[in-house]
Amino acid sequence: MDTVSLTGKELAAAINADTKARAATLTEAGTAPRLALVVANDDPASAWYVNSLRKAAERLGIDCDRIDLGADASADALRAELAARSADTAVDAIMLQTPLPEGVTLDDVSSSIVATKDVDGVSPLSLGLLAAGLDGFVPATSEAVVELLKHHDVPLTGRHVAVVGRSNVVGKPLGQLLLAENATVTIAHSRTVDLPAVTSAADIVVAAAGRIGLVTGKHVAEGAVVVDVGTNEAADGGIVGDVEAESVRGKASALSPVPGGVGPVTTALLMRHVVVAAEKARAE
Amino acid sequence: MDTVSLTGKELAAAINADTKARAATLTEAGTAPRLALVVANDDPASAWYVNSLRKAAERLGIDCDRIDLGADASADALRAELAARSADTAVDAIMLQTPLPEGVTLDDVSSSIVATKDVDGVSPLSLGLLAAGLDGFVPATSEAVVELLKHHDVPLTGRHVAVVGRSNVVGKPLGQLLLAENATVTIAHSRTVDLPAVTSAADIVVAAAGRIGLVTGKHVAEGAVVVDVGTNEAADGGIVGDVEAESVRGKASALSPVPGGVGPVTTALLMRHVVVAAEKARAE
Repeated sequence: MDTVSLTGKELAAAINADTKARAATLTEAGTAPRLALVVANDDPASAWYVNSLRKAAERLGIDCDRIDLGADASADALRAELAARSADTAVDAIMLQTPLPEGVTLDDVSSSIVATKDVDGVSPLSLGLLAAGLDGFVPATSEAVVELLKHHDVPLTGRHVAVVGRSNVVGKPLGQLLLAENATVTIAHSRTVDLPAVTSAADIVVAAAGRIGLVTGKHVAEGAVVVDVGTNEAADGGIVGDVEAESVRGKASALSPVPGGVGPVTTALLMRHVVVAAEKARAE
Repeated sequence: MDTVSLTGKELAAAINADTKARAATLTEAGTAPRLALVVANDDPASAWYVNSLRKAAERLGIDCDRIDLGADASADALRAELAARSADTAVDAIMLQTPLPEGVTLDDVSSSIVATKDVDGVSPLSLGLLAAGLDGFVPATSEAVVELLKHHDVPLTGRHVAVVGRSNVVGKPLGQLLLAENATVTIAHSRTVDLPAVTSAADIVVAAAGRIGLVTGKHVAEGAVVVDVGTNEAADGGIVGDVEAESVRGKASALSPVPGGVGPVTTALLMRHVVVAAEKARAE
């Protein structure tokens, strides 16, 4: 079977063109949208990602501040910073970078990001708005999976989707989004017994566990659609997904590449969220 | 196959004995725990349920106020009442009854219940705390399903559970709870294609769709465990579940009865939540 590549580049470009126009409108009306990136680590991968977000923001006409609290920042210091940026009317959007300092968890601090600026949907209130089907920001990676499938005309209503991974930032919110799209949803994870049997029953398999080579040809039904959310560090320093592409290709009807699949759509959606937050703030 | 009855009466009695003792301790220390039941309908089934909650509270030593805003109450009036009870230090716990007035949805008003008093876990913040795995009140019916299975020594880790129904009050929060118990979770619903195939792949089937006779013998694998969450009105005025017991019995290894299964455990857990809320409020 020919396996179609579910590339995210065209979709990301279309989203970015819209975002750029909306950012320009905001800037012409007075002030550019502004994103605060809060960092508290000295991790090279995080630095690389923050840099890529800053470049993306710059290209789209979004002002971007990097606030570095240092790798030893306390939970209290992080909460105070996030609360201050939440209250600051000059800031439209806030993103907290991981990893966090030793002993500090996202759950310890994320509720200090006000929901209206929580563009990556990490706070408990944002997660609850999603669970209730109410208006709020959805974690961008999970939204990117759904948008990528829609862009490539993969129907979701009544289809059985298996998500491998149950993280708060991808697997669980993706399950909510897929239910809202009328898909039948299975969430599998490290404790799942007989993963190949579970995923082979699905029309669509989403690999979001953060483990290289987790999903192989034997995990996938003939003709299934496979989306790879993994961004693992490869031996050569590049990034590699959770899907063993060699064995899945030829069996799946479609597979999203890594890099170039979910990734660019995620970044584009984050930037769109910044503009949406700014538009709502200006309208108040 | 002999089908075991997963009765909830013994478990409910054990929870209630604990709740009664804790309520007595609170009362001896000063004030009894207090639950506010906010009603805005003239529905007979709701009146019956409110009455049963008041009796349950009375038996356990929990003070209970019924606040009736009338079937024509506006969303604003409901929000104002819920906010007032949220701010009132004499009230430990708040439950909003459904149905709500024509044109008012739970989502319109539930966020006016402060999370610390939201004993049925209906507000967006409560749902998000659950999704994030943080401390908060879980919708009692979904918690009752998990507690009933544990009480009857049905293991959950690595088991495949199919939940039929994706409501915000049962199906979706139950999915979160089951993931936290390390189960593989499938959520099916009215748009699911080939429901019997989906549910027959599961070790445990939970029927929570609110439709009489939805789950029959052909939906259930030989030896599976079936939990019936349905509380539908029967032709004779009694209540009847979502499971067609005749065809499931003999095929399933266990089935929870309606009434007498999930129901009494749900009421017991709600009352336990009231006492927990009161204990936390006193400790502040």
